[in-house]
Amino acid sequence: MQIFETQEEVPLIRERLHRVGITNLKTIAKINWKGKLYTFIPTFEITIDVPEEKKGIHMSRLVESITESMGEAVEEEVSKVHTSLEELELSIIERLEGKHRHTRAEVWIRTQLILERETPASKRISLEPYDVEVGVIKEPERLEKVLKVTVIGNTACPHAMANNKGKTHIQRAVAMLEIRTDYDEEIALEDMIDVVEGSFSFPTYTLLKTVDENAVVQGMYKNPKFVEDVAREILHKAKKRFRGKIHVKVISNESIHKHDVIAETWNY
Amino acid sequence: MQIFETQEEVPLIRERLHRVGITNLKTIAKINWKGKLYTFIPTFEITIDVPEEKKGIHMSRLVESITESMGEAVEEEVSKVHTSLEELELSIIERLEGKHRHTRAEVWIRTQLILERETPASKRISLEPYDVEVGVIKEPERLEKVLKVTVIGNTACPHAMANNKGKTHIQRAVAMLEIRTDYDEEIALEDMIDVVEGSFSFPTYTLLKTVDENAVVQGMYKNPKFVEDVAREILHKAKKRFRGKIHVKVISNESIHKHDVIAETWNY
Amino acid sequence: MQIFETQEEVPLIRERLHRVGITNLKTIAKINWKGKLYTFIPTFEITIDVPEEKKGIHMSRLVESITESMGEAVEEEVSKVHTSLEELELSIIERLEGKHRHTRAEVWIRTQLILERETPASKRISLEPYDVEVGVIKEPERLEKVLKVTVIGNTACPHAMANNKGKTHIQRAVAMLEIRTDYDEEIALEDMIDVVEGSFSFPTYTLLKTVDENAVVQGMYKNPKFVEDVAREILHKAKKRFRGKIHVKVISNESIHKHDVIAETWNY
Amino acid sequence: MQIFETQEEVPLIRERLHRVGITNLKTIAKINWKGKLYTFIPTFEITIDVPEEKKGIHMSRLVESITESMGEAVEEEVSKVHTSLEELELSIIERLEGKHRHTRAEVWIRTQLILERETPASKRISLEPYDVEVGVIKEPERLEKVLKVTVIGNTACPHAMANNKGKTHIQRAVAMLEIRTDYDEEIALEDMIDVVEGSFSFPTYTLLKTVDENAVVQGMYKNPKFVEDVAREILHKAKKRFRGKIHVKVISNESIHKHDVIAETWNY
Repeated sequence: MQIFETQEEVPLIRERLHRVGITNLKTIAKINWKGKLYTFIPTFEITIDVPEEKKGIHMSRLVESITESMGEAVEEEVSKVHTSLEELELSIIERLEGKHRHTRAEVWIRTQLILERETPASKRISLEPYDVEVGVIKEPERLEKVLKVTVIGNTACPHAMANNKGKTHIQRAVAMLEIRTDYDEEIALEDMIDVVEGSFSFPTYTLLKTVDENAVVQGMYKNPKFVEDVAREILHKAKKRFRGKIHVKVISNESIHKHDVIAETWNY
Repeated sequence: MQIFETQEEVPLIRERLHRVGITNLKTIAKINWKGKLYTFIPTFEITIDVPEEKKGIHMSRLVESITESMGEAVEEEVSKVHTSLEELELSIIERLEGKHRHTRAEVWIRTQLILERETPASKRISLEPYDVEVGVIKEPERLEKVLKVTVIGNTACPHAMANNKGKTHIQRAVAMLEIRTDYDEEIALEDMIDVVEGSFSFPTYTLLKTVDENAVVQGMYKNPKFVEDVAREILHKAKKRFRGKIHVKVISNESIHKHDVIAETWNY
Repeated sequence: MQIFETQEEVPLIRERLHRVGITNLKTIAKINWKGKLYTFIPTFEITIDVPEEKKGIHMSRLVESITESMGEAVEEEVSKVHTSLEELELSIIERLEGKHRHTRAEVWIRTQLILERETPASKRISLEPYDVEVGVIKEPERLEKVLKVTVIGNTACPHAMANNKGKTHIQRAVAMLEIRTDYDEEIALEDMIDVVEGSFSFPTYTLLKTVDENAVVQGMYKNPKFVEDVAREILHKAKKRFRGKIHVKVISNESIHKHDVIAETWNY
Repeated sequence: MQIFETQEEVPLIRERLHRVGITNLKTIAKINWKGKLYTFIPTFEITIDVPEEKKGIHMSRLVESITESMGEAVEEEVSKVHTSLEELELSIIERLEGKHRHTRAEVWIRTQLILERETPASKRISLEPYDVEVGVIKEPERLEKVLKVTVIGNTACPHAMANNKGKTHIQRAVAMLEIRTDYDEEIALEDMIDVVEGSFSFPTYTLLKTVDENAVVQGMYKNPKFVEDVAREILHKAKKRFRGKIHVKVISNESIHKHDVIAETWNY
């Protein structure tokens, strides 16, 4: 049977496309991080550019690049795995290079990390979840990565505290730190999470015994912060600690309003 | 040209279907409420049952029932409109009865209400948004409706307050009140919203000048509440004020945790 | 320092609460399934009832029940783990019984499964993602579980096919099968997924080479189905294969409309 | 009583913030468009910059700028209203200038438009919903706007059609067109929607009688398109018709896969 490769035809409308591929693909990924094996079911996006004289791309080759890079890693028995999300992504791009011509390629992974924390008073272990996203972008002359962490914390309003003899409104806040930098720049997602989590009025914990809850409450009142203060502290610490284009966005789910407040800043 | 009505065929597998129709349909609706005309772009769901010997339904007749009930009401010039969401829904069901055989029918509308409030100290007008959902369910012997409101408020933790000399953690909370009752039971969504909004530690406002913010902060500390307390108060007031099956769910977006806490109760 | 247990006080408003606890909690879970270790980062909900004379519950004990049941299972080195999501949930409820009085308890887990499939023509391995949810509900006289799978498939419209000489509109559809049954009833999520995935016009695959794509396309045209047909087939097969209260919901993201169509049925 | 203006203090960490304000605010808006009054309940975001020597902003002044621009327009009786979303946004920025110092300001509105279409065969009226977003960005030397429309359509795969004797897979697709341009550039959202809706394999309709459904089905088969083709056609037409920075993103909810495919391009 003859197979037509419609993708190779010349399209009627000639326009270069920058990003063509697959998105919202959920599959298994494994990372050997600091000597321990971690499993994820992340969401992938993988795209390449298409020149103006080609009608389309062969989507299945993108899927193959992902699955081959992962091996048959559904069970927990893999011996050789990648050591970071960006290293996994680069290996996907390298496989793709043999399969499908392109001049730029991107691989993005969104997933969750669970990190161990110690509670502030009872010193118990608490497992904390964080949303992370990592992208690798390969252009002819450049190999970049984008690292993004989203952390749940809180704000205690200093304005209300000044006007209400120490009483104030407190609420959950969510902060995002994104760094775009050279692929070879060594930045751990865990360090980015530390920067963000340490910039709220106080960190939050999944497990809090009464003595811990008291420590968190006392801590929030000692460290009142506008959403503006949280954004500034994240940017300030991130500039000192990481090299790259830094973007910070903080959203506070106000307890006195039905809407949110936002503070956003960047160093570029 | 002959048109095949595949829907009228007898299906291979004979099973009665309870709810078949259209969902996530966005269109214009107009309500003349207390003498004033309100416009919405709500989301509709409309379903009927299908007996085991019919393959399918004629979906376009459901759409026609909606659009005909609405008239040509895209512009703000309609003189005669419905006086409540449930009245609009019943008129859709009545139109549908002439168009498509069925033994039960449901119409659901999800939309937002904006209500005027007065701020607690400066006495300014603040416009507050509320999510509402209304369904009318017609069965051979019964005509019921379901009214649901979702209100954003807050909780100030009484346990942390007792253990921290008046300091506590505060956060946004979201409460849902749902009533299933006879179609003829007169219950205003506005009254349901009042019940819910008055059961938090304090109401929230879109506009708050500093004196108002102080009043909200002071109010929250005077009225500390667990998520359990909010759920109980809503159920208690709703039972006194409304007749029907009452369901209450409150979710508090804790400022000291990354997860939420929940309290749910009902009177049936 | 004295610690006040506000939760133990008698509340002003006396109403029993049916479900009080923690929701949207993300943490690590491990399951040893058919001899292989699987890791998840699921979302938990865990609730107990509260009698009318108790103000609230001790939320941290719910968190402890989860984390203790999981062990220190952040890394992939656990030897003894639970063999199903419901078995893990029951062990959480059993731990909770020693920690916090209650008459009913529920634990719910939402996560994703990745299963291996073989593509229809090239016989390659394709990894397919499925959303699953499992709940265990313990009441004084009864131990139940709820199993729910959500599967992405498609519908090819038989009505348009009859009226357009074999041409028709095709689209993605999403089907949900939920079974509520005794805890001891043996039902594998994988079998439920098989029932649903086999009821669309044709299964979908993450990886499709051109010969596979052709097989899927040909398969869809040979098996045109209304959303009604998909719902009926799932219910019919599920009734034969599984014992319990069965609920089916299918939503088709129509390619000819901006809205969706829905078919829903149940056996109770 | 003395009121402390904490916002005016000098913060410990000195960093300029680019975007500080309010987000996810839902309220009433009215537009007099082509002589007819339209009501929306849109979602607002409004931000200003904060210099490094000011701790924070006075959030309530942002809310006042919105509500004053809107008048007391809850009911349908307003005589003088704004003629476009961007004109409303500019009036909000102008009010804000008298209330709060800043060097840059942004106002964003997300809402839905309902437009009348004529069905392809029966020539009935069908009301079609579209998501739109409009932003006005005022900087010291520049006044810009961003217009964005999101339209639901479809793709019929030309590759599968070539390999299956005219049969193919079809699915819903969603396309986004965004233009960033001078505030004074006259671009109607309706024209942008036309460009996008006309670039799919065929437009979609809320109401389709059987003859219309046949016309849509026949139309899709006559005009098979990759997601790449849709993106190219939108960009090509938009460049001819509109002046500004154009960004196009198309996502196709594949009926043969569980994931989506994406094509993205821009002219800058």
